[in-house]
Formats: sequence, structure tokens, C-alpha cells
Amino acid sequence: MIDFRALADKYDTPLYVYDFNHITEQYQKLKKAFSGRKSLISYAVKANSNLSVVSHLAGLGSGADCVSIGEVKRALMAGIPKYQIIFSGVGKGDDEIEEALEDDILLLNLESEAEMERVEAIAAKLGKEARISIRVNPNIDPKTHPYISTGLHENKFGVDLETAKRMYIYANNSKHLDPVGIHFHIGSQLTELEPIREASAIVADLVRSLKAIKIEIKFFDVGGGLGIVYDNETTIEPYEYAQAIFSTLYGLDVTIICEPGRFMVGNCGYFLTRVLYEKVNEGKRFVIVDGAMNDLLRPSLYNAYHKVEVVGKAGDESEADIVGPVCESGDFFAKNRLLPPTEHNDLVVVYSAGAYGFVMASNYNTRPRPAEVAIVDGKDRCIRQRETFEDLIKLETMCL
Amino acid sequence: MIDFRALADKYDTPLYVYDFNHITEQYQKLKKAFSGRKSLISYAVKANSNLSVVSHLAGLGSGADCVSIGEVKRALMAGIPKYQIIFSGVGKGDDEIEEALEDDILLLNLESEAEMERVEAIAAKLGKEARISIRVNPNIDPKTHPYISTGLHENKFGVDLETAKRMYIYANNSKHLDPVGIHFHIGSQLTELEPIREASAIVADLVRSLKAIKIEIKFFDVGGGLGIVYDNETTIEPYEYAQAIFSTLYGLDVTIICEPGRFMVGNCGYFLTRVLYEKVNEGKRFVIVDGAMNDLLRPSLYNAYHKVEVVGKAGDESEADIVGPVCESGDFFAKNRLLPPTEHNDLVVVYSAGAYGFVMASNYNTRPRPAEVAIVDGKDRCIRQRETFEDLIKLETMCL
Repeated sequence: MIDFRALADKYDTPLYVYDFNHITEQYQKLKKAFSGRKSLISYAVKANSNLSVVSHLAGLGSGADCVSIGEVKRALMAGIPKYQIIFSGVGKGDDEIEEALEDDILLLNLESEAEMERVEAIAAKLGKEARISIRVNPNIDPKTHPYISTGLHENKFGVDLETAKRMYIYANNSKHLDPVGIHFHIGSQLTELEPIREASAIVADLVRSLKAIKIEIKFFDVGGGLGIVYDNETTIEPYEYAQAIFSTLYGLDVTIICEPGRFMVGNCGYFLTRVLYEKVNEGKRFVIVDGAMNDLLRPSLYNAYHKVEVVGKAGDESEADIVGPVCESGDFFAKNRLLPPTEHNDLVVVYSAGAYGFVMASNYNTRPRPAEVAIVDGKDRCIRQRETFEDLIKLETMCL
Repeated sequence: MIDFRALADKYDTPLYVYDFNHITEQYQKLKKAFSGRKSLISYAVKANSNLSVVSHLAGLGSGADCVSIGEVKRALMAGIPKYQIIFSGVGKGDDEIEEALEDDILLLNLESEAEMERVEAIAAKLGKEARISIRVNPNIDPKTHPYISTGLHENKFGVDLETAKRMYIYANNSKHLDPVGIHFHIGSQLTELEPIREASAIVADLVRSLKAIKIEIKFFDVGGGLGIVYDNETTIEPYEYAQAIFSTLYGLDVTIICEPGRFMVGNCGYFLTRVLYEKVNEGKRFVIVDGAMNDLLRPSLYNAYHKVEVVGKAGDESEADIVGPVCESGDFFAKNRLLPPTEHNDLVVVYSAGAYGFVMASNYNTRPRPAEVAIVDGKDRCIRQRETFEDLIKLETMCL
């Protein structure tokens, strides 16, 4: 049990708290599920990029899936070996490509022919051969939120099967490209197994076709998307997930790369915020807290559900919205939840805040971003200091 | 004409550019519209809180409407006199209230009885009398986006008329509260005059009722919400806006406070971003640029429309989405727009990016926030330096 009150007293609120032991458990669970084949768990750094979080995963043997050169730098700083780092994303800048090639990471994951041309040109300039994979769009509906669905043609990700084949043949003939991997990712927070199996089967077929023309794919990257429970969602068991993928790989000797983000850190995280006061507007009850949408954007941006709890309070529950101080109606954490009466300084815990929480935080309304705290074996440790007003204005006062 | 190419070459992309002369024009237009009565234009700092922007407005004589103690600090630093600074917002922390009272700003705008109790207690502790106004919720539908509509009862803002009256009587009898103002704000980006007139009439009636019981309101704060043109919206003329309010104020000797944010800075701002490459997925065209949702969130968060233009390009136009490198389908600036063919490094201008642009920026995907540049009388000047990777990790490396 985490002593939320003690943490709030020690570090103040709003505050992010991460249970690192939970991350360890999730990592081991997934690694074990894939133990029937060669595998690399590449943590999707975008979910929670705190250096101490990435460093903890490095200690477990995790690789890193990065979507910017900044994330690659974080992964390297956190101690992830360069041959376990992947650079993905639909829009890599020239300087990012150059730095990634200089860093000699495992591979660059490409999402378009135009991008491949850039990578080839930059590799040629550097006199290098760029190890690449290609993100294939298998056109499978993952049945999730439109904002986090990524495997249908009408979105910006990946290339279709025919384009992919053409790209592999081109890359195989290029002196500056080495096509070593293939990648797909159909969406986040997946709750059904069948779309994954279908997508994997389509992509594995492509790998076999490539093999037939002597293009040997070594890394079979199944992306991320393993869901977690926020409310009462159905999720996929890692073992069954791995088996579904294994079942499509007959005849192939590949290393499976898996890129979990939310699965690894989502439920390790808690967002702590204190009650400022309650108010009732025409029968509608609001609990106003000191955290806001700038700290945790998911409810506003995705209308996402997070479990909330008032620590150590009981009493006659009634429906309330938990809202923040930001001047927008969209600034809320939870709507129409049954909550006990609350008082000034009561502590509210927002659950499942480990993924896409702090990383999306902003300084909107000139609000300094929260501190982040890790719990390791019951001991707490600050892993990012609370921002100060001076931090916020530094880059502006330099210009005055 | 602003030379966007020269600015992109000099400062790199993504980049925010603000035309300060436009801000001056908007300020003068509004000040003139209210010239028939005593008025204070209090710029809503949350729209664009850059110190140089606020300082420019201070030079014009503007006051500041602030929603956090951080914004109060910005206003004071930027040179806005303390008696022209208002502190609003539904959730003020004890430390924020205390600091605002110590700063002796014009008034604290209260949004609930519970908040009034906190302010009274803190003023008592400090041996002060807190000047306050109360935000009244006139229950008028502003006919705008649900996220920026704030004047209906079902949202968290303000108090109903009866509660307001009770609060004024309480405050008037308190040694530590001085009720000097009244406030309402029915929503942002208002495009119709009638809801404003109705709301103003309701609130003015309350002021007359208070006057009858010897409670003299000096400041009549009509909030913000004047719209701007993003696409082809109907907007309200400042003169007619002022007249609509004046028409409700018979018999009252009050100073009108107006809190424009978007109106003042929205169309002064341009977001510059360069094309990385184009791709076509199954007939759907995507222009991938180096800016992303972390830099400008409005399209993702509100599905907001921004005019976009490829600088100096012509040719056969076809429909495309302009999207960023962030790994979310929600990362877009514009959808289904007619655009000429683009090439690597072409410059795209996103218009109307002066309000709720940079202030909502985050470091999602470990992307450093853009620089901000001001144009004053045709001359450019950096007003916020581009973030570096080192800036992003500083508060974390201190903990390693």
C-alpha cells in the first residue's frame, strides 16, 4: 500500500507517483510471454519518458522505441544499449536522422518512400549503411478510440503492402540502406486479440514473400497497443497475445520486437491532487482540486476515464464532477462520479496516470508542472523536481 | 507583409511569430469602443502570456486578467500597475490568495462561497481587507463550442444570482472583505450580440438591487469572449459590443472592465512549420510537417479550424491533411484542405495562432517547444528562445 497522504505532505500536490515494482512486474510478464522465441521488449518512451523510469527499464534489460531524437537521447542517457534502440515516427527531421545514424542505433523505422529517400541521402553523405525497418499498414480496424487507432489506411501511419514490397526491393539494392526489420502497429489500448492475429498474419506473409526473393527480415516488430484496465475494460493476456503472434510466424527465424508503453507504465502511476473547495451550481456538484488539465490532459483530450478516490473519506456519496482551476469547461478529471463529501485539503487520487500523463503536461495558465516521485521497494524518491515560476519564464527573460 | 521565409531561415521552425502592431490596433479599437464610459481593458493573460506580449500591452495602458498567481507575477513583471490587475479563476490555492493580497492587486474575482470563506480567512490572518468581485452565472447560452462555453449552470464557473446576492451581503458585513466588483463571462469566441446584452442586463439588474441595499459596485466586469475570424465566422464589432453593454447600465456609475484575450492576440500570431515530406496512403494525401500537436494543440483538442498556406507555392491543388510527427492520429493542423504540391523544406504558415497557441504547448514526444518572435514596426526580435534538450531534462537530471 502506498501512503498517498505522506507523499502529498512530503512533496506537495499536484504530484505524480510511480510504483517502479509494478513496472518490473509488467516487464517480466511480457518478457516471459515471449520466451518461446527470440524477443526484444522495446519500451515506448513516449508513454512516460522520465529518465529514471527509462533507466529502471534499462536495468531490466528493456530496449527503447523512440519517436524523436530527444527520446533517443533519453534512452541512451538512461543506459539502454544502442543496439536495443529503435527510432520510429512519421516525421523525422534531417538533423534527427543524421544524429540517429551517428549514434548507430539498432534501426530506423520508416513510414514513407519520401522518408526512405531522405534516410538514404543522409546515410550516403555520412558514408554509412542505414539499418531500417518499414512500417506496414495492414488496414485492420483495432476497435479503439479514433485518436489512438493507427492501422487503418485513412491515417498517416505506415505504408500499404505493395508500397512496402517496392521499398524493400529498393532498399535491398541500395548501398546505403539495409532492410533488417518490418513493423506494424494497429492502435493503442487494444482489447481484442483477433485484430492483432490478423495483422500479424498479413505482415508475416509479406516477410515470407520477401524471403522468397532473398530479402531476409531479422526483426519482426509487432508494435505496442496492449491495453490496461482503466475502468472495467477487457484486456488481452500477454501470453495469449504472444501465442497469437507466434501462430503466424511459421517458417520464419525472426526476433520479435514488442513496443509496450501504456502496458508497462499506465497502472504504475497515480496523480495526487488536493481539494480546494466544493461548490454546487443549480444542483450540480463540483469538487475543485489543485490539479488541472495542464497536468493531466487525457480526460480533456480523449474524454478518457480515470478511476478517482478521495483518500480516507467516507460518508453519503453523491454525484460530482472533479474539476481543476483552469478556465475551461474542458478542465475536468472525472464527471458524474459518486463521491463522499469533501473538505479543503482532502486528497484525491487519480488512478492509471503513469502513461500519457506527465509527458503531455503543459504550463497552460502559467501553472508549473508537477513533481514526479518513484516508489521502489516501498521507498520514495523524487525523480523530477517541481517546476518553479522562474523555470517557466527563463527563456523569456533572456530576451527582455 | 511579413517575410515568413526570412524568419524561418533566421529562427528555424517550428516557430511562433506575433505582429505586435496588430495587438496595438486591436487594443485601440476596443478602448475607443468603450470611450463613452470609464473603462479598463484587462488583457486575459492566459491567451498568450509571453512577458514581451504582456509588456507591450502594459505600454498601451492595458490591465491584466490573471487566472493563477503565476500570471499575476507575469503581469507585475511586465509592468502592469497593481491596481489594474485582477485575479480570477475557479480554484485559487491558499498560497495564491495570500500572495495576491500581499501584492495589493485591484481585486480577486470569486467563484464560490467556499472560496470567499478562504479569502476572508486569509485576509483576516494578514490583517487586510480583500477587494473582491463575484462571478455571476447568468445562465445564458453563448452558442459556441461546449469546451469554451462557460455561462450555463451545468459548468463549474460562477454562482447563480441568489447565491451572489447572499455573498455580497455577507462580504459587505465582513471586516476583511470589500465587495467592489461584479463579473460575468459567458464564453469564448462569441459571435452573437444578443446573449451578451441579455447577460449584461441580468447582471446590471443585480447591481441595481445591490445599490438599493447600499452595496455600491464600482467595477462592472463584462468578461471576455469577443470572437475573431479563423475561417469565415461572423464576429461582433467592438463598438456594437460596447453599446449593447452600455444600454443595460442606466442609472449606474461603474467602471467597465473588459477582459479580451483571443480578440487581442489571436490574429497577431502565425505558426511557421516546414514540410518534411509528403505521402499518400491509399489515395489519401498527407503533408507531414515539423510542427506538431505538442506545439499547437487547438486542432487536436477542439477540432479548431486554422487557415493554412504553403508560402510561395502554386500548382494543381488537391486535398491533403497537414499532420505532425507525433505518434497520434489526433496530431494534425488541418484536414482535407486544397494544397499545391509541396516539397521537402517548403514553408507552411498556420494562421490565427496568437491565442491559446504557445501557452498550451507541451514537450510531448520529447519535443522542445518552439521559439517565439515579435514583429514591431517591421523589425523582428526573439521574445522566447527555443527550448533545448537540456532544458527538457534539467529537472530530471538533478534527481539522478
